[in-house]
Amino acid sequence: MVKITLLIHCEDQKGIIASVTNFILQNSGNTTYIDQHVDAQENVFFMRLECVFESASFRVPDFEQAFAKKIAQPFEMQWQLHRSETKSNMALFVSKYDHCLYDILGRYNAGELHVHIPFIISNHKDLEHIAKNFDIPFYHIPVTKDTKAAAEQQQLQLLEEHKVDFIVLARYMQIVTETIIREYPNKIINIHHSFLPAFVGAKPYHAAFERGVKIIGTTSHYVTEELDAGPIIEQDTIRVTHSHTVKDLIAKGRDLEKIVLSRAVKLHAQHKAFVYNNKTVVFT
Amino acid sequence: MVKITLLIHCEDQKGIIASVTNFILQNSGNTTYIDQHVDAQENVFFMRLECVFESASFRVPDFEQAFAKKIAQPFEMQWQLHRSETKSNMALFVSKYDHCLYDILGRYNAGELHVHIPFIISNHKDLEHIAKNFDIPFYHIPVTKDTKAAAEQQQLQLLEEHKVDFIVLARYMQIVTETIIREYPNKIINIHHSFLPAFVGAKPYHAAFERGVKIIGTTSHYVTEELDAGPIIEQDTIRVTHSHTVKDLIAKGRDLEKIVLSRAVKLHAQHKAFVYNNKTVVFT
Amino acid sequence: MVKITLLIHCEDQKGIIASVTNFILQNSGNTTYIDQHVDAQENVFFMRLECVFESASFRVPDFEQAFAKKIAQPFEMQWQLHRSETKSNMALFVSKYDHCLYDILGRYNAGELHVHIPFIISNHKDLEHIAKNFDIPFYHIPVTKDTKAAAEQQQLQLLEEHKVDFIVLARYMQIVTETIIREYPNKIINIHHSFLPAFVGAKPYHAAFERGVKIIGTTSHYVTEELDAGPIIEQDTIRVTHSHTVKDLIAKGRDLEKIVLSRAVKLHAQHKAFVYNNKTVVFT
Amino acid sequence: MVKITLLIHCEDQKGIIASVTNFILQNSGNTTYIDQHVDAQENVFFMRLECVFESASFRVPDFEQAFAKKIAQPFEMQWQLHRSETKSNMALFVSKYDHCLYDILGRYNAGELHVHIPFIISNHKDLEHIAKNFDIPFYHIPVTKDTKAAAEQQQLQLLEEHKVDFIVLARYMQIVTETIIREYPNKIINIHHSFLPAFVGAKPYHAAFERGVKIIGTTSHYVTEELDAGPIIEQDTIRVTHSHTVKDLIAKGRDLEKIVLSRAVKLHAQHKAFVYNNKTVVFT
Repeated sequence: MVKITLLIHCEDQKGIIASVTNFILQNSGNTTYIDQHVDAQENVFFMRLECVFESASFRVPDFEQAFAKKIAQPFEMQWQLHRSETKSNMALFVSKYDHCLYDILGRYNAGELHVHIPFIISNHKDLEHIAKNFDIPFYHIPVTKDTKAAAEQQQLQLLEEHKVDFIVLARYMQIVTETIIREYPNKIINIHHSFLPAFVGAKPYHAAFERGVKIIGTTSHYVTEELDAGPIIEQDTIRVTHSHTVKDLIAKGRDLEKIVLSRAVKLHAQHKAFVYNNKTVVFT
Repeated sequence: MVKITLLIHCEDQKGIIASVTNFILQNSGNTTYIDQHVDAQENVFFMRLECVFESASFRVPDFEQAFAKKIAQPFEMQWQLHRSETKSNMALFVSKYDHCLYDILGRYNAGELHVHIPFIISNHKDLEHIAKNFDIPFYHIPVTKDTKAAAEQQQLQLLEEHKVDFIVLARYMQIVTETIIREYPNKIINIHHSFLPAFVGAKPYHAAFERGVKIIGTTSHYVTEELDAGPIIEQDTIRVTHSHTVKDLIAKGRDLEKIVLSRAVKLHAQHKAFVYNNKTVVFT
Repeated sequence: MVKITLLIHCEDQKGIIASVTNFILQNSGNTTYIDQHVDAQENVFFMRLECVFESASFRVPDFEQAFAKKIAQPFEMQWQLHRSETKSNMALFVSKYDHCLYDILGRYNAGELHVHIPFIISNHKDLEHIAKNFDIPFYHIPVTKDTKAAAEQQQLQLLEEHKVDFIVLARYMQIVTETIIREYPNKIINIHHSFLPAFVGAKPYHAAFERGVKIIGTTSHYVTEELDAGPIIEQDTIRVTHSHTVKDLIAKGRDLEKIVLSRAVKLHAQHKAFVYNNKTVVFT
Repeated sequence: MVKITLLIHCEDQKGIIASVTNFILQNSGNTTYIDQHVDAQENVFFMRLECVFESASFRVPDFEQAFAKKIAQPFEMQWQLHRSETKSNMALFVSKYDHCLYDILGRYNAGELHVHIPFIISNHKDLEHIAKNFDIPFYHIPVTKDTKAAAEQQQLQLLEEHKVDFIVLARYMQIVTETIIREYPNKIINIHHSFLPAFVGAKPYHAAFERGVKIIGTTSHYVTEELDAGPIIEQDTIRVTHSHTVKDLIAKGRDLEKIVLSRAVKLHAQHKAFVYNNKTVVFT
């Protein structure tokens, strides 16, 4: 039995759902789950479809070729096909904060994340012991102004070597540059410690404190070249009061950051987040 | 152009989605939106499907007949078909509390609810002025032990006369009996002022206060013959502290009750809530 | 028996709490509730204190005079004294949206708000029938570029005549100018339909939609001369998804707006919100 | 400089706040923070008070003796005094689930919890590697029907040896019996994986799934001899839908459990939770 997830988007038009599900049926498959969305403003159709093929003679490459020709081409679709049992390779970038790292690795160990983590990269050594405790290779790649370019090359090499599918910046305290962003478009997930678009940039908890907000938030988004402006995957908020100091906001924020980042990682790993027009369509 | 919403449930089996969407396509229709769910434990398939027929020659009764024969029968489906422009007739039952009534009527006036409200029934006269302000007929039907049976007959007559599709108990302080429940199975929506199944029965805020909970809730559910045990449509919660008296809980609860009841009404009116096995499948 | 609420703020220093509570005791009063806060950054002390005087001979003016001399002066306090049974006079400004108005008037009728509403002012006639249904005088004061100054004079006259203590802008669609703001500093409560400081200005739901946020919010704040930048009293948020249109965001937002504005009104009416440094200290 | 936290409760009566703060002032101390609550139904007064003594000659035992005689005795107070710099000794009991353990230890390392953790006890060996990674002694004390009594004696001995102040059951999968409960009354914190009082007992997520609730919750409470019926310290909830399986509920629940338990631990460690009448007064 082969399980497949299909991701499709194209101009909205008549007969897409019927054509796709019918094509699957003709190939002795069964469509088990559909999520779809039409962006009425942009006239774009999105679909995420799970299907099952039970025939022993089913071959994914043959199916892909036929799908491309008979369905994707006539409808001018952008599409991806993922075998459900294949786990994505996810690289972790960290610095000194450990809360997001512990949260992700705890879930990883509990089998909650459908990924493989080939390594952790850090510009500091502080969290090496955690990597060791979880038996994951740890690469210490320091970054200074002068070494940034070389460090990036080293990072890229590791990413390629391990066939990394996507990158998670788990409070990585360096700005990732276009060198890497262009290699991994909409495949780098960041956690920003504010309710974007409020408080972009550094020190968002300080800014929130200054403004006297009654709720703080956190945002997980794909990294684009414009800082903190990429497509938002997931957000959450928590109440605060006048009695909370900046230090309290930071502590409360940590609870949000780890949960929100892990939710975003899960969504991406399950191929549930589409990017379009600097926004996401997230099927939950 | 005719817009239709189809609700289907049946045993889960191969080819349902493809067959249904294909049938629609063959009838010159376009499937614009699908929500579906498989209850893996019970092996039941649920689908809510929106489709559009643009041909001037399209006739709903013909379509219904063909669908019944070619699709529903072979798959042994339970199904309903609703024309999207048809508004359901919704009766309101109230007593003395006005917060849910104002909330529903406010949304009704704002065009937020896809319903027609033919009348309001109350066992008290207190809220008659509100009905008048919103120009909705108000029937005062007092209920005592002795008059309960007669009152129910009067209610049933009004419900039938106005072809009421579903009933909303907007803090109606009488127990609706099987006489009416059996005529409107899964079509009577109640708001219970606790986070069910905690605190069933009367005085839930008092019980919550006694137990010292830190969060209170409210629950909108379909009315079944077992009190407060019907399928849950929607719930919500809010934080409380030791400093809140029972009176405070009641006031905070009012805010939840009106929002949660209105959400349930909306879901029902849009045919987004299926009942199965004393639970709901709610497509949002 | 006389119940009093004292609001105090001053430079933080030793002995404030003891001195105040002792002074009350010496005047045969009993301190029944204290909330306080120290802004460690600014070294400012805030206190809200409720006390009860049971003696028949107790006179508020005498107490005020003595308190001013013996306590407030030596500690250089800013202070206010409110008799708990005195209701504030609250003016309502509205335009065309009725959801906040219904919510406030519903609570007003239920005795939930400790205020008196002498009148409603609107630049449109749309909501006059609601004022009538709740038996509250309604003044239609249209505002155009040319008549703005005259309208403000008319508004000010009504506010003075009815000894209005504070003003609530319940989705009043005109910018209140400094003419009125200066007369009612930190006494005009607005509801802004975004999670400030995100999306200041007009059309915040459109801006939120464009940015693709996964949560929208609303903010109640005191009006200052800088638009949407006044001290925040209360905020709340709600989840949205890619499937929500701008119209959906507006509908969801209405639910937040009415609840959040009413909470802010309650806090202000109970003298629980201090303004300092363009932020609020809110005792809940 | 000595910082002290005083916890007081007694029958509500006149002059308590003034007497206490005045007594502190007379002892050259300054009251820096007060939280209080009156349970009007039971006529009980609760206060948590922080104060600072700057004099080099200040001695805590002398202060305690004087306070007992001059304040506590006349008012018939129950009271406790804690030096703010003293950390409580907190024992951790775990079994096989690691999410709560990681969350607590992560915060412990980040300096977020004002406690010292002398050891971790477990009836299984699964989590020993985590204890080792965090450098905390780990005692494996297996529990079977036959060895339960002996195991408890071993536990009690460790608790006494390390002068443990309170115990945290971080998903410890054994019922703690009266032998230990009586030694640590209102000092054993449990996390129950349901929104109590709904779904007491084992398998709450299964029960929640069966009932078809739309929100699940979790509850941290003090352990009393009646199972899952002790005073509630903290609760939180999260939305679920029909699409979530029991396994999904368990995964979502884990996120709540760890956050809620850690919040309860913090509150207890800061002496912010009073127990009275099987309820808590929690000052936040």
